[in-house]
Formats: sequence, C-alpha cells, structure tokens
Amino acid sequence: MTSELPIALDAMGGDNAPREIVRGALLGAARLGVRVALVGRRAEVEAELAAVEPSFVPADARSRVSVVDAPEVIAMDEHPANAVRAKKGASVVVACAMVGSGTARAVVSAGNSGAVLAAALFHVKRLRGVARPAIGTALPRSDGGSTFVLDVGANADCKAEWLAQFGVMGSVYASSMMGMASPRVGLLSNGEEPGKGSALVQAASPLLAAAPINFVGNVEGKDLFRDACDVAVTDGFTGNIALKTAEGVGEFLLGAISAEARKSLQGMVGGALLKPKLRPIRDRVDYRATGGALLLGVDGEVVIAHGRSDAEAIVSALRVAATAADRSVHSVIGSQIAATPAAPIEETVTP
Amino acid sequence: MTSELPIALDAMGGDNAPREIVRGALLGAARLGVRVALVGRRAEVEAELAAVEPSFVPADARSRVSVVDAPEVIAMDEHPANAVRAKKGASVVVACAMVGSGTARAVVSAGNSGAVLAAALFHVKRLRGVARPAIGTALPRSDGGSTFVLDVGANADCKAEWLAQFGVMGSVYASSMMGMASPRVGLLSNGEEPGKGSALVQAASPLLAAAPINFVGNVEGKDLFRDACDVAVTDGFTGNIALKTAEGVGEFLLGAISAEARKSLQGMVGGALLKPKLRPIRDRVDYRATGGALLLGVDGEVVIAHGRSDAEAIVSALRVAATAADRSVHSVIGSQIAATPAAPIEETVTP
Repeated sequence: MTSELPIALDAMGGDNAPREIVRGALLGAARLGVRVALVGRRAEVEAELAAVEPSFVPADARSRVSVVDAPEVIAMDEHPANAVRAKKGASVVVACAMVGSGTARAVVSAGNSGAVLAAALFHVKRLRGVARPAIGTALPRSDGGSTFVLDVGANADCKAEWLAQFGVMGSVYASSMMGMASPRVGLLSNGEEPGKGSALVQAASPLLAAAPINFVGNVEGKDLFRDACDVAVTDGFTGNIALKTAEGVGEFLLGAISAEARKSLQGMVGGALLKPKLRPIRDRVDYRATGGALLLGVDGEVVIAHGRSDAEAIVSALRVAATAADRSVHSVIGSQIAATPAAPIEETVTP
Repeated sequence: MTSELPIALDAMGGDNAPREIVRGALLGAARLGVRVALVGRRAEVEAELAAVEPSFVPADARSRVSVVDAPEVIAMDEHPANAVRAKKGASVVVACAMVGSGTARAVVSAGNSGAVLAAALFHVKRLRGVARPAIGTALPRSDGGSTFVLDVGANADCKAEWLAQFGVMGSVYASSMMGMASPRVGLLSNGEEPGKGSALVQAASPLLAAAPINFVGNVEGKDLFRDACDVAVTDGFTGNIALKTAEGVGEFLLGAISAEARKSLQGMVGGALLKPKLRPIRDRVDYRATGGALLLGVDGEVVIAHGRSDAEAIVSALRVAATAADRSVHSVIGSQIAATPAAPIEETVTP
C-alpha cells in the first residue's frame, strides 16, 4: 500500500496533539506503509518528531513522514465555520486544502469536528448533486459485524431528501469499505412498524424505498447492535444522541464491572481471570480501534478521528483514510449520486 | 401502605400475560401490602389465579387481589388509538376508566404503550394546562443515582413549548418520587455548548431557562449515565432512540462478556467468580427492577411496564404506581403547571 501522495494529518487537532498525533503518524507509516504529511506549526511538530526515540519506528518509516507548516490553530471552543474562514493558515484548513489541490490523497483530523466539516466544505468541496455531506461511523454488532450509522453530527436538522441521499452514500460505503454485495439500509425510528416515526422519518421512508439501494425499512435503537441492517440512516441530531448514548452506556457498564471487581478478593480474582477475555470486547467498542468517522459527500476522503485520539487511534484513522483513498470511495459516491434521480432539493451549502 | 382503593392492573397486557401479570399481582399484594384489581377476561384471569400454588403468597395477600372483567383484548399490532376507541371492553380501557371514575388509585399496564397512552388520554384525561403528556423513565447513573428522561415515546414530533412543560413535569417527578430539593434539569442535545442543537432544541432552551425549574442547559447522550443532571428533557422520538440504544448496548456488552467467559476454562472460572458481583449491575440496568415508565401530565397515576415484564417487573411497576399515588404526583404536576405562565400553545389532544 504505497503511494506517491501522502495522507495529510492535522498535527494540531485533538486532546493529545501534537505529541500523540506525531507518534501516530510514525506508527502509521511503519505499519501501513503510507506516506504521512504532518500539518501544523513546523517548529512544534519538528520538536515532537525529534523527541521520539530512534527505536520507535524504523528509519524508512520515518522517511515517509514529512512536515507541512500551518502557523495557525483552531481551538475547541471557537465557532468552527468562522474560525475556518478567518484562519487560512490553520492546520485543518491547510490539510483540507492539500486534498482540494491534489497534493494529498486524504485528510485525517482529530480536531473540532465542526471545523473539519467546515474546512472540508470550503476546500475539499461538496460532490456535485449532494445536498448535504454526512458523517458516518461504524458501531459493533453482536454477530461480529458492524452497522454503519450516518449522519452522526454534520446536520442537526435534516430534510427527507437528504436522508435518502445518506442511504445511497452509506450503501456505497458498506460496499466499498466493508465489501458487501447488497448492504441492507435501515431507517432509524421509534418503532419498526411502517406507520411509526417522526414526520421526517415518515417522509424519508418512501424516498429510501425508491432509491437504488436495499432498503429494509425502519429499525430501532437496539437494532444498531444486532444483525438487522448494515447501514442505518438518521439525521445528525438523532445520530449524535445515539452515538453518545452508546458511548455513555459502554463507559457506565465497563466502569461498573471494574469497580465491582475491585471490591472483594473474589471479584479481583474473577476480574483478573476474565480481563484478558474482555480485551477483544473492549477493543470492539473502543473508538481507538474503529478509526473514527468518515465524511461522505465531499470530493475527497476526509476522516474525523476521535478528539481523544492517541497514537493507536491515529493509526486506525490513517488505515481508514488509506483504504478509502485506495478504493476512491468519494468518487464511487459521486457516480452513484449522479446515477440516482435528482433529489428534489439541491442547495448551496454555506457553512 | 394500605389503601381502600386498588391499583388497576391490566392482566392481558404484555408478552407474558396473563400468567406473569397474575403472579405479579399476588407478589405485589404480599410484598407491598397494596390492593390490586386484575382487569381482564374474567374466566382466564380466574383460571390463572386458581393455577397459582397456595404457598405462593399468604392468604391475606390473595384476599387483596380482585378481578374486574374486561372481555376484549387489544393486540400488539392493532392501531392503538383506533383499538381503544373501538374496544370499550378492552382491559387497558377498563383499567384506565377505573382511575377516571375514581374506583382505582393508579393503573399499571405492560401492553402496547400506544394503547395505554390513548386509553389514558380518553379515560384518565389530560391535566388542565398540559399541552401533551409525556412518558418518563429512569436510567442508571455511574454515581449510583439515576437520570429521569422524558419524553421517551409519547410524542414523536414536539414543539418547544411542550419540551418546557416536560421540564416542569420531570422536575416534579424528581422532587416527589426521588426526594430531590432542586432537581437539575438538562436538555438533551448534540453538544453542550448553548449554540448547539436542532432548531427545536435551540427554541426550547430559553423556555426551559425561563421556567420555574433548575435548568442546567444542554446535556449530551453520554451525560445521561453521569452525574450531570437529574432530569433530561427531549422529544419522544429522540428519547425513544436513546432508550432503545442504551438497551441495545447493554444487551450487546453483557452478552459479549458472557460469551467470552464461556469460551475457555480461565474465562469460565473468572466469570463464575465475577458473576455474583455483576448481579447488582445487571439489576441496575434491568427494566424488571426499574418499574417501567410513568405517564406524566394526565389526571391520575399511569405506569407503563415493559412489554416483556415478568412477575418481578410487575411488582416493581406496582411499587412505582403505589408511591406515585401516595404522593399524588399527578396533582402536584397539575398545580405546578397551573402556577407556570401559560404555555403559548394549548391544544386539544385527539389521539
């Protein structure tokens, strides 16, 4: 998996930037064989690179990591779109511009997701025919598979036509990235029955049924973790709530189990014996292993890594970015959208 | 906790009706000292009562359980409001009518929640000044407390003014049922920042801030399981998705842990040692222990038990119903709503 073009990696984005991002870039270059352009304040990034012990990765991996200067930084509390407009030299802006100008084959950022979205809309640009790009991410399923959910946060208020496009984009993702022949697309609702759902869901359902996808109807929140569908479509508000709720329950349960295991000798022994067995489960629900979220509907591959990403999480995100670039997921989405009867609504996005 | 008036219990509602409902009524009468009127097809209910071994509960508990005939049954797949309108003799309709006519002090049903809602609106009736009743339920929190979430399913599409009332009703619930002096009320959103949220959330936020409650602003999905607020307000669509997602993650994680524990001797030993320690956690996330959901905003106490309720779950639901009736939660809500500046929107509900 080598390519002349690097993946642009926002070195300043995320809670653990730049240290863990820099180390993630090196590990990614070593394990995946990819080229990585670390985009950030040159002096800081180079200092972090210099601080990494020589034995951390082989010299040839180190040679695949370059630095691109981006003097400005967008803070987590800034208004995303305003900051992206004002700071042309911000790392996420420079990184997205590299994809836009064809000097990077994908971009990865663990920064403010609103800023990544805004920078991508400005510089990677929306695909022709796409009303609204959406953020999609995979949730683990009890059968060992996963459910790709979109939108999980780009669009808090959606129109029915956008949800239908999310179905098409999600279906392409599942085909291209998960190798599925005919991914089952479900519509997240408060009940499986066709009559159930908000006004939005009831309006989107017939549009999804008419789209060139394998639409299986309404699915419920609990179905996300079962073998009920491969792609679950929802608006960005509901998708975000579902994702954060799942994260909250996971932390609550695993935390409570650890706490109980520490309370008694019997619990400690049991916990110690069970712990290595729980590792694969923890990995499956751990954002560090999943590679974050993909922005679908823009003219390039944009991966939004978790804000708490460490070096391992960055490697996972680079893997998703490299795979998406190798399979050119964005252009497959572009042709699918072009082949789909025009959505009744087509607007200009002004983030 | 004795009272002359019984709690009306829908004997025909739920996956395990009438057997588990009848046994739950007996256990509830024994443990809680309450009177229970089993509402359902008399012959079937009496046959189930006769089939219960005499040693199951003491004779005096048995004497506190009566039977009220309701010849019709509403199936899970019927249109709730239509069925409630057409079948005056359905168990859930007769049970709600008992509260409406003052011959029962609360109603409990594990049947189709849409039918319970419709029957309650027809026969228990909406409280004066309440735009829309809401269904609320408690989620367990990592600090040992719980977060009361409403609406979790009564109203798929909401107006901002309704959400403000949900805040008032939820606050009364937390004060009356959980004994809190000044319950913190949060608004479920896709981000904590005030600017975040759907159009609905952004419109509801200032109304909640102006309401006579302790409004703490936006909360996220993961905050439901932390010590972030005591009451979380949301629309019935989002609330249902959050609740079902939480249920799905819980089943996924606990199932995966059991499966891993069975795979090896080490896992089996560890699992066996840890299992008794996990019991309290499982109980905390188990709907059987929580007593189901309460319908707030109607002129009486209405408890919607889980559709899969067994006898133990029915006991929990009866406990919630008895406590709510003892504290007359519905009338406290009535006076709070009356004391709150009239909501701009006041409509007639035609379920």
